[in-house]
Amino acid sequence: MLLDQIQQTNDIKKIQPKDYPALAEEIRQFLIEKISVTGGHLGSNLGAVELTMALHLALNLPEDKIVWDVGHQAYTHKLLTGRREGFETLRKYGGMSGFPKRKESDCDSFDTGHSSTSISAGLGLVRARDLQGKDNTVVAVIGDGSLTGGMAYEALNNAARMESNFIIILNDNNMSISENVGGVSKYLNNIRTSNRYLGIKDGIYDAIRNTRFGEPVVNGVRRVKNSLKQLVIPGMWFEDLGITYLGPVDGHDVEGLVTAIKEAGRRKNCVLLHVMTQKGQGYAPAEKHPARFHGAEPFVIETGLPKKKKAKANYTDVFSTVMLKLAARHPEVVAITAAMPDGTGLKRFRSIYPERFFDVGIAEEHAVTFAAGLAVGGLHPVVAIYSSFLQRAYDQIIHDVCLQNLPVIFAIDRAGLVGSDGETHQGIFDLSFLSSIPNMHVMAPKNKWELSDMMKFAVRFQGPIAIRYPRGEAYDGLQEMRAPIEMGKSEMLFEESGVALLAVGSMVKTAETVREMLKAEGISCTLVNARFVKPIDTEVVDRLAQNHQMLVTLEENVASGGYGEKVRAYADENDLPVKVVSITIPDEYVEHGNVDLLKKEILIDEDSIFEKIKKELTEE
Amino acid sequence: MLLDQIQQTNDIKKIQPKDYPALAEEIRQFLIEKISVTGGHLGSNLGAVELTMALHLALNLPEDKIVWDVGHQAYTHKLLTGRREGFETLRKYGGMSGFPKRKESDCDSFDTGHSSTSISAGLGLVRARDLQGKDNTVVAVIGDGSLTGGMAYEALNNAARMESNFIIILNDNNMSISENVGGVSKYLNNIRTSNRYLGIKDGIYDAIRNTRFGEPVVNGVRRVKNSLKQLVIPGMWFEDLGITYLGPVDGHDVEGLVTAIKEAGRRKNCVLLHVMTQKGQGYAPAEKHPARFHGAEPFVIETGLPKKKKAKANYTDVFSTVMLKLAARHPEVVAITAAMPDGTGLKRFRSIYPERFFDVGIAEEHAVTFAAGLAVGGLHPVVAIYSSFLQRAYDQIIHDVCLQNLPVIFAIDRAGLVGSDGETHQGIFDLSFLSSIPNMHVMAPKNKWELSDMMKFAVRFQGPIAIRYPRGEAYDGLQEMRAPIEMGKSEMLFEESGVALLAVGSMVKTAETVREMLKAEGISCTLVNARFVKPIDTEVVDRLAQNHQMLVTLEENVASGGYGEKVRAYADENDLPVKVVSITIPDEYVEHGNVDLLKKEILIDEDSIFEKIKKELTEE
Repeated sequence: MLLDQIQQTNDIKKIQPKDYPALAEEIRQFLIEKISVTGGHLGSNLGAVELTMALHLALNLPEDKIVWDVGHQAYTHKLLTGRREGFETLRKYGGMSGFPKRKESDCDSFDTGHSSTSISAGLGLVRARDLQGKDNTVVAVIGDGSLTGGMAYEALNNAARMESNFIIILNDNNMSISENVGGVSKYLNNIRTSNRYLGIKDGIYDAIRNTRFGEPVVNGVRRVKNSLKQLVIPGMWFEDLGITYLGPVDGHDVEGLVTAIKEAGRRKNCVLLHVMTQKGQGYAPAEKHPARFHGAEPFVIETGLPKKKKAKANYTDVFSTVMLKLAARHPEVVAITAAMPDGTGLKRFRSIYPERFFDVGIAEEHAVTFAAGLAVGGLHPVVAIYSSFLQRAYDQIIHDVCLQNLPVIFAIDRAGLVGSDGETHQGIFDLSFLSSIPNMHVMAPKNKWELSDMMKFAVRFQGPIAIRYPRGEAYDGLQEMRAPIEMGKSEMLFEESGVALLAVGSMVKTAETVREMLKAEGISCTLVNARFVKPIDTEVVDRLAQNHQMLVTLEENVASGGYGEKVRAYADENDLPVKVVSITIPDEYVEHGNVDLLKKEILIDEDSIFEKIKKELTEE
Repeated sequence: MLLDQIQQTNDIKKIQPKDYPALAEEIRQFLIEKISVTGGHLGSNLGAVELTMALHLALNLPEDKIVWDVGHQAYTHKLLTGRREGFETLRKYGGMSGFPKRKESDCDSFDTGHSSTSISAGLGLVRARDLQGKDNTVVAVIGDGSLTGGMAYEALNNAARMESNFIIILNDNNMSISENVGGVSKYLNNIRTSNRYLGIKDGIYDAIRNTRFGEPVVNGVRRVKNSLKQLVIPGMWFEDLGITYLGPVDGHDVEGLVTAIKEAGRRKNCVLLHVMTQKGQGYAPAEKHPARFHGAEPFVIETGLPKKKKAKANYTDVFSTVMLKLAARHPEVVAITAAMPDGTGLKRFRSIYPERFFDVGIAEEHAVTFAAGLAVGGLHPVVAIYSSFLQRAYDQIIHDVCLQNLPVIFAIDRAGLVGSDGETHQGIFDLSFLSSIPNMHVMAPKNKWELSDMMKFAVRFQGPIAIRYPRGEAYDGLQEMRAPIEMGKSEMLFEESGVALLAVGSMVKTAETVREMLKAEGISCTLVNARFVKPIDTEVVDRLAQNHQMLVTLEENVASGGYGEKVRAYADENDLPVKVVSITIPDEYVEHGNVDLLKKEILIDEDSIFEKIKKELTEE
């Protein structure tokens, strides 16, 4: 095995060039085998094998810096930097992260997870390098999908001013997670489908001649000089900004890539190297179903099918179904996603109501203000964005939606702990940042039926309203509890006395178990489904305070600005004769791993909560 | 007066074309005269007089929709839509807003204030129009400065897909508030300085011939067809995205503009009409000092000088000075602004340390992640952004700075109520959104010396830390109170018993007065300068709870997630035997007006707080 020769950083330089294709093949087999067991990002990693090899061959790590945009294409990089063993514990609690982490390796230059940050971060590393008189190379590797995010453009606009070297590698697979959208995508597609002309100047002709596209490319440049074919001259769009464009080059040709990267490194300004790759390259099922293999569950290698059959519907499925019902009844309902038609469950909506469906690309800021425009125009938009990505649009929610008190529904998937994606993806701030905004209303369903009911409620409501629900299997207990939803009213599930649990969304299920545990010890226990985090149900707090010795709030959100603080503030402000205990996410980033393990770790699992309540009762 | 003929919307259509220049002149004189009295945005409005006239002539309001990016160029629009009287009360409490407001007129299609939202909002109006089978025209008017913001690009990327008409007018004055930066700016400059070739196709040649640049332009197009001059072919960058580019046209020629706008309206896709204007046009001082006349205080028309001499330094000045001191002592300190070198006070830093100063354009997201990159690279960046604009970078603070626990200092000017700019600019969420983030530290100074001390403290601290301070005059009382700053520790100003006031930043001064009022009534009163909002000083809360009957927290921030909630939560959680009263901004948007009036209105002025405390004491 060639791979066995690679024990640590730069070991790849010992491999003979003739063996590069064989090594790439071994890496692919390794990744497929490991990810088939642990799950993880497959397609993007298979697409970046040769590119990563070339970077490690052309650069000198860890002095040189690579910033991986999003970071879910960095598995080969981890493999080449001494982390082979890590794949046994990939994305597991306490194991190796699925994203670059500075604390994991000095070859990981910058932590990533969200899209479109790499050029900004890379520019920072470049400026710091120059001010300190160093001369290492800095490379940002960004996908064409990430290029639809506004901050990538803000960074490109700034990179244009560089008077020292900075390499941006555009890893172009014509996809983000789903298909790409918009003008830039179309533009890149023009480059792809043109006869691969090369807009490269100066002495690079010879260097490029060695790449797979060499000869026709050089001829192409000569030919085009005599005609006005801007649209097929690759890279003019970038050159117009002041960025030197190199490419496109074959992203699966290691030697050609090494040549191009070295050439790019010689420029005294910002260079964009356009690399064409295929997502899922080398594994047929992933080439065929790129969206399914973006973030894959453990799968059977031979068939590409998931090992575990999905037992129950998840919240995304429930949302998907109710959106179809709502669309049929309400012609004013339209749906918006930021590059996640599959992930958010809007794919079916898209197929039935294509003209009422908008995939805006990885562009959460635009998504929200666009929704505000639609609402002013008389429609009722549903914006479906994951909790941690909605952080990107905080200002737009304040400034464009809530200030004008517009009827926009936020369907917030992946709220609470998300598990194996870890720190960057945990949806643990939304209750706080949404609650801070005037005119906003915030709900969370206890089970699958309630998500439907809340969506129906939201469509009848004329103002900004958010519904947040967790990743994964939808809770299907408590079906019989289905009191009509009223603005700002909670739902009484079990009314007793003693301890009252007030649980938000996913924590209702947890609270049910805790209640059973308490009752088994003879402690009488009320259970309330909070339903609304903003406004909170002050009436129920008033009432429970009269005949309970303790109110316990439960939420999958940080304490600051969350539900617990609000209930506590209300109780304290109104001198209610009751102790309030808050169960929240602690004030720290929560790493990756199985959600149940994470909950134990941060003491919001059933046992920990039960123990905490018993302790608080004793202290009374 | 021609202006007298314009009493309501569309009255301008009664004016003879030959009188357009005279009307423009009257409008300019009107604006200069009014703004010299009330203060307001002058330069941007003077630059947009003819453009606005042309829009009102070419369109049919209110059916047709204009979205004004930022909105500080909409004064002529207000004048032409029956709001002439409003200029008497411009930006005053209860008076006319300085920005478009839907509640003010049906001709204001979308509320704006922050930059780069207009294309997104306009696209929403367009899609809503099409889905409802209407055929009104939608125009987004965006400045070249706003085009450096990422969400404008996200929107352009989406606009490229339009198959029905949408007009984007690029109001290009080669400025945002200060000089523009970056590749796009340079690109636009290439268009400006080229021989004004016109990249216009199809039947528009004739239309354009009538504009001031007509004849040479058409010849230019012919000429260029035979050579490869992409850089001087205006608009290819936009055309590459799939947007039809028209222009550049003279932005001070009403008839030419009307022709161009009508032509743009005939296209069945997204059209960008590039209009060249001059900021401050027609008023020499504003042409000469565009930054000073961006947002002007009342001024003397003859000289252009402010009517009121600045009596005292404001916090921006203090920040400006301490940054020079810190830069001299700490070579690792660098400074970042998002298009506000004047507003943030970094202009002097720029002139002395140009290589350590970065103006990234209106690009707050990039600014923050760029800072994270600089910090990873070994520098200590100070990011100076106004409170309400920092909302744009909430995710980047969470995901790029705090997750990696990086030494980035956030200098947050215009925190709290800002006054005449109103709802969109009030900095009333920062304590909440910053406090929600793990690893973040948040401070607020009581007076000018403390801002200096806090900056010095921040530079010695190795982690994310924010200092928020208000707009306007820096408080210069309490000079003798200058205990060294310690992490998480408040400052005891006056220790007594009875009532304890715990005040954040600007509210210390308010609390001083309230304390005097209480003492005049014989109520003993402690005053604490909170200094830190995160982490809060729990020790002082513990201690004060022992010998005070009431703790009163005071902050210029919403309640949810703010300082008061934290103190209350701590007191309640620890069963401290004390009542907590919180003075905060209520859960609503606060309109424009004099800050002192606004404070009275929302009950956070001295009298209201005094009354509230007395009432709470009586209820005890």
